[in-house]
Amino acid sequence: MIRFNSDYTEGALPEILDALVKTNFEQTTGYGEDEYCAEAREYIKSACNAPSSDVHFLVGGTQTNLTVISSLLRPYQAVLCADSGHINTHETGAIEATGHKVMTVQGNLGKICADDVYKAYRAHFEDESREHITQPKVVYISHPTEWGTLYSKRELEEISEACKKCNFYLYLDGARLGYGLVAEGTDVTLPDLARLCDCFYIGGTKCGALFGEAVVITNDEIKADFRYCIKQKGALLAKGRLLGIQFCELFKDGLYERACKNANVLALRIRNAFAECGFEFYFDSVTNQQFPIFTKEEIDTLSAKYGFLPIEKLDESRTAVRFCTSWATRDEDVDALIRDIKMLK
Amino acid sequence: MIRFNSDYTEGALPEILDALVKTNFEQTTGYGEDEYCAEAREYIKSACNAPSSDVHFLVGGTQTNLTVISSLLRPYQAVLCADSGHINTHETGAIEATGHKVMTVQGNLGKICADDVYKAYRAHFEDESREHITQPKVVYISHPTEWGTLYSKRELEEISEACKKCNFYLYLDGARLGYGLVAEGTDVTLPDLARLCDCFYIGGTKCGALFGEAVVITNDEIKADFRYCIKQKGALLAKGRLLGIQFCELFKDGLYERACKNANVLALRIRNAFAECGFEFYFDSVTNQQFPIFTKEEIDTLSAKYGFLPIEKLDESRTAVRFCTSWATRDEDVDALIRDIKMLK
Amino acid sequence: MIRFNSDYTEGALPEILDALVKTNFEQTTGYGEDEYCAEAREYIKSACNAPSSDVHFLVGGTQTNLTVISSLLRPYQAVLCADSGHINTHETGAIEATGHKVMTVQGNLGKICADDVYKAYRAHFEDESREHITQPKVVYISHPTEWGTLYSKRELEEISEACKKCNFYLYLDGARLGYGLVAEGTDVTLPDLARLCDCFYIGGTKCGALFGEAVVITNDEIKADFRYCIKQKGALLAKGRLLGIQFCELFKDGLYERACKNANVLALRIRNAFAECGFEFYFDSVTNQQFPIFTKEEIDTLSAKYGFLPIEKLDESRTAVRFCTSWATRDEDVDALIRDIKMLK
Amino acid sequence: MIRFNSDYTEGALPEILDALVKTNFEQTTGYGEDEYCAEAREYIKSACNAPSSDVHFLVGGTQTNLTVISSLLRPYQAVLCADSGHINTHETGAIEATGHKVMTVQGNLGKICADDVYKAYRAHFEDESREHITQPKVVYISHPTEWGTLYSKRELEEISEACKKCNFYLYLDGARLGYGLVAEGTDVTLPDLARLCDCFYIGGTKCGALFGEAVVITNDEIKADFRYCIKQKGALLAKGRLLGIQFCELFKDGLYERACKNANVLALRIRNAFAECGFEFYFDSVTNQQFPIFTKEEIDTLSAKYGFLPIEKLDESRTAVRFCTSWATRDEDVDALIRDIKMLK
Repeated sequence: MIRFNSDYTEGALPEILDALVKTNFEQTTGYGEDEYCAEAREYIKSACNAPSSDVHFLVGGTQTNLTVISSLLRPYQAVLCADSGHINTHETGAIEATGHKVMTVQGNLGKICADDVYKAYRAHFEDESREHITQPKVVYISHPTEWGTLYSKRELEEISEACKKCNFYLYLDGARLGYGLVAEGTDVTLPDLARLCDCFYIGGTKCGALFGEAVVITNDEIKADFRYCIKQKGALLAKGRLLGIQFCELFKDGLYERACKNANVLALRIRNAFAECGFEFYFDSVTNQQFPIFTKEEIDTLSAKYGFLPIEKLDESRTAVRFCTSWATRDEDVDALIRDIKMLK
Repeated sequence: MIRFNSDYTEGALPEILDALVKTNFEQTTGYGEDEYCAEAREYIKSACNAPSSDVHFLVGGTQTNLTVISSLLRPYQAVLCADSGHINTHETGAIEATGHKVMTVQGNLGKICADDVYKAYRAHFEDESREHITQPKVVYISHPTEWGTLYSKRELEEISEACKKCNFYLYLDGARLGYGLVAEGTDVTLPDLARLCDCFYIGGTKCGALFGEAVVITNDEIKADFRYCIKQKGALLAKGRLLGIQFCELFKDGLYERACKNANVLALRIRNAFAECGFEFYFDSVTNQQFPIFTKEEIDTLSAKYGFLPIEKLDESRTAVRFCTSWATRDEDVDALIRDIKMLK
Repeated sequence: MIRFNSDYTEGALPEILDALVKTNFEQTTGYGEDEYCAEAREYIKSACNAPSSDVHFLVGGTQTNLTVISSLLRPYQAVLCADSGHINTHETGAIEATGHKVMTVQGNLGKICADDVYKAYRAHFEDESREHITQPKVVYISHPTEWGTLYSKRELEEISEACKKCNFYLYLDGARLGYGLVAEGTDVTLPDLARLCDCFYIGGTKCGALFGEAVVITNDEIKADFRYCIKQKGALLAKGRLLGIQFCELFKDGLYERACKNANVLALRIRNAFAECGFEFYFDSVTNQQFPIFTKEEIDTLSAKYGFLPIEKLDESRTAVRFCTSWATRDEDVDALIRDIKMLK
Repeated sequence: MIRFNSDYTEGALPEILDALVKTNFEQTTGYGEDEYCAEAREYIKSACNAPSSDVHFLVGGTQTNLTVISSLLRPYQAVLCADSGHINTHETGAIEATGHKVMTVQGNLGKICADDVYKAYRAHFEDESREHITQPKVVYISHPTEWGTLYSKRELEEISEACKKCNFYLYLDGARLGYGLVAEGTDVTLPDLARLCDCFYIGGTKCGALFGEAVVITNDEIKADFRYCIKQKGALLAKGRLLGIQFCELFKDGLYERACKNANVLALRIRNAFAECGFEFYFDSVTNQQFPIFTKEEIDTLSAKYGFLPIEKLDESRTAVRFCTSWATRDEDVDALIRDIKMLK
């Protein structure tokens, strides 16, 4: 079985394991106050061109989302996102468990737009009975989205401006950020994100680390006491240095982007193979997730040899599926897949 | 600086890193449903002589405590523990953040006793206005305790019986369980814990793993849907196999106990050195934490070369401190410390 | 200004105030354990033909919804309702503040159907990644709905059966239940609700009481310790007898239904006047809320003399509005309104 | 049975019922935005000499405490109070259910002092691992306390100064405030409370109203959006005018203080009778709660005719009990009690 199920089917980039092995017997203080975390913070602040930002390291994505979002809201406030947003669909109500409603707008290819933000603002603040309604305060977006799509710099600038005008915080979930930053044709960079978001995270787990997410807080208003929140949510790793060591490796000389770049290249090879064979796509993605539409027979045939996920049953005969590459995907596995794709039609 | 600050100053047992490296490019499913987790579960169930128990792997201790305890309680119910209990003192209100009160009784060397349980039961259920008071439902103990002390099998049997009679759940926090299981003179084994507790966890983070805690649920009543709870609290590691691989190493041939045994041996060497020099102890511990009482001068002298933690200022001149050994502590560092202890008096 | 804004613009039925005055200096125990509450419970159990049900008195609707729903759910479970459900739209996230997601289905005239329940069940339990998704457990409906519409007995039986098959609890919000029970053409009675729901409440606040809602729990599984939940949510009235006295008056000889009946009669007179003048309706309601569609000019004209609420702007020129009658609405005010309606067209 | 069990055994001051009857058929807007609430706010602001304060009306004490305190805290923050504080002992974990720890200090006759505040501040902020500990932010006191005792103006000034220096909020629970304001020898006035507290509430339920508590917020920092919080907690009464009407009666010409004054006079008559007969007291109270110490025989004898509450079993033979008077206590009942007290010894 060759798995294209997800971007977390393997361990970590070898550089990362090497670094963990090399540093294993060094003694450090705990809870992210060690030298490696300090160094990794500097690399990230530099990559983001955000010298005055705060950088914190957490373990996983759901954990990061619930810790950040609950720290930004007063009890009656809510987070706004696309209906397909991960916090709305696949985190078992983690945000609600911290007391807050997830308000949704209909996404367009997994994205929201500035106008959605303004509309949510007006819908709330122009309603005379608004005190009976949850108040939107945080706008949550992901980049890439759940569907592998990307915001343009222009779109992000508009959303960011809308948030500022509405007095909302903009928070970006970058679980797969690496694949987005190096995607073909994107004009969005880390410094853009640092400039446009109040807070965002740089995903490690799905982008080559064993685990780990780096939260970057750029808005001074929301920096205070964030470590208390991390600890309270059970997200403050005792051996914090494990996160620091990993993010040092990822960011000291461009490993993060290199590793993700290759995944995208392989994903596009897969996309092109499907396209050449006449397959349609559920979403048009330039990142490491690809969404061809299969018949039942095609699913059965490929499933014998490859792992991939059904995403949505479109009608009796057709189902959208997902193929996912990663930093660990091997050329030969993609070659094999492409050969088998060509034999489907 | 030689650090005796804690048992999480280094990375992991070399066997664990080796296993991570060796398995790094294998592809597995995520979220703890891989073969390594399955294998580790079998090792643990076997070590616990609890074939029908459920075993889940989480990342850290606070996370484990809040996930387990919140899953066991209805909204008005509370967890009972010693005043020194970690959930009461050093988890930033993680339990309360899930909606539940931590009710305390005065601990004795960090321990509670069966009588405390009965008293809490009667205090609640014999009170006519009990509906105005949080209802105790879970009894939380740790073994070893915060102060390195251990329950005897007899004590645990009595507490367990009290919990059964009171219709309470008994939950044991085993963050440092390894050091407890192999302590000199203890008569408490893993099968005892599985027989006497409704749920407990076997600590990895402080006992040789990079990170990770294994939750063992023996009471059928509380097994259902626990994975939803793990996910909701942000505690379901995407690359769950990292936990499975580690616990396989720890439990397949006794590494867990071997590694902890050595830490205890070194801790007792340190204790004996202090005792021989006439130092008093804040608590009498047979595990990897030792609590000598120092003067300010002694603190200053030893601090120049060794890391250790102040625990409590006893009076103007005396402070209880903590020295902690671990699976990673080196003989030569203990030798050096003992030489320097002897020079203090 | 004659107000048709809501059914809580006046105080209470005179019989209720009389009873409060008459009993004012009697001494009773607090917290709903007095003789009046006991008596009111018997009247309600009898009216519901549910002798083994538990009846509790709370103060208001949002309070009742959040107390009941949070008592029925484990942390990862959710409540399912129509998108227009009050708990989803106008309670400032009260349910989420207790930690639970409100899952919605598109309502039909404010109602859901049995098929919605089955679909939600299958969507969840047939999803392999369901542990990453909130689990539906309570189905919330209101009768009448937010839009004044009613379920038929057949519809409720089907929903109830669906809930039983899916192992969900059925909870009915009866904030305006009185107006529903006596509506023209309804075949739904209190014993039907007691037979078909696991829990429901009989609204007092909007149906003639000063305030107060009577929660009826018929499912034995969910009766235990509900008073703890009431107290914890700040919903246990110290002078509980105030609720008992009111519900005694409402239920000892049919006052509840008589008072609501008159409101419906007046509402239908208003509806007929609008219909005769050719107005369209946003919803077709047989209860005390009526939803004609107005032009801007019609709104301006009637607003000069009458209070009523805009509900939804349908397009540039047309807006759905709500006129609400109550137990307190006076014939002469309806006469005046009807005269003025006739002058509109 | 003559009940001295509590100060909520009767309905309300006749003036209040009269006002409810008189206004019953007036039409007002809901949710506290009516003219009566507006008028009551002015009376209260004037009585407090706090023209720029915000005044909100809620229904009960637990509800008020949980709504206010949860609105003042970030997730990791806690409220500090005496161990006997109502929020710590008799609200079924209502504060914890909003996510926050109740931190306690040992009270002295139910009171805390400025030094307790400074100590809590230092204990937290001087602890290097403070991020692992809940951060105190609100200081909760009650006046009178649970034990009927009162703060002096000097004590309140010192606590208030301590809170300001520590950047804590001072919140005062005035469930029985009326009895405190008119107590013999007190030097604390409503303007003092408004000057010294960031927020406090004036209790209606136990001081002559049917129900209702008036929250006064004087600190501008914490005024915003409080009505959202009230609604979310189910504490925004639909017929808000019921609260406005009651507080108008209580505050338009001094009824609140007159009614409470009489209760204190009767309580002191009872106290003196006990004292003259040689009874000891558990607490020395100058307000409407009195705490004599009884033998079992004395309890049995008086229980035949009078209601009162056991408070604490002091030893095998002695139990502290509570007698409570109120605005509704009748002279003849106190006369009877005193006669029977005299026959005890």
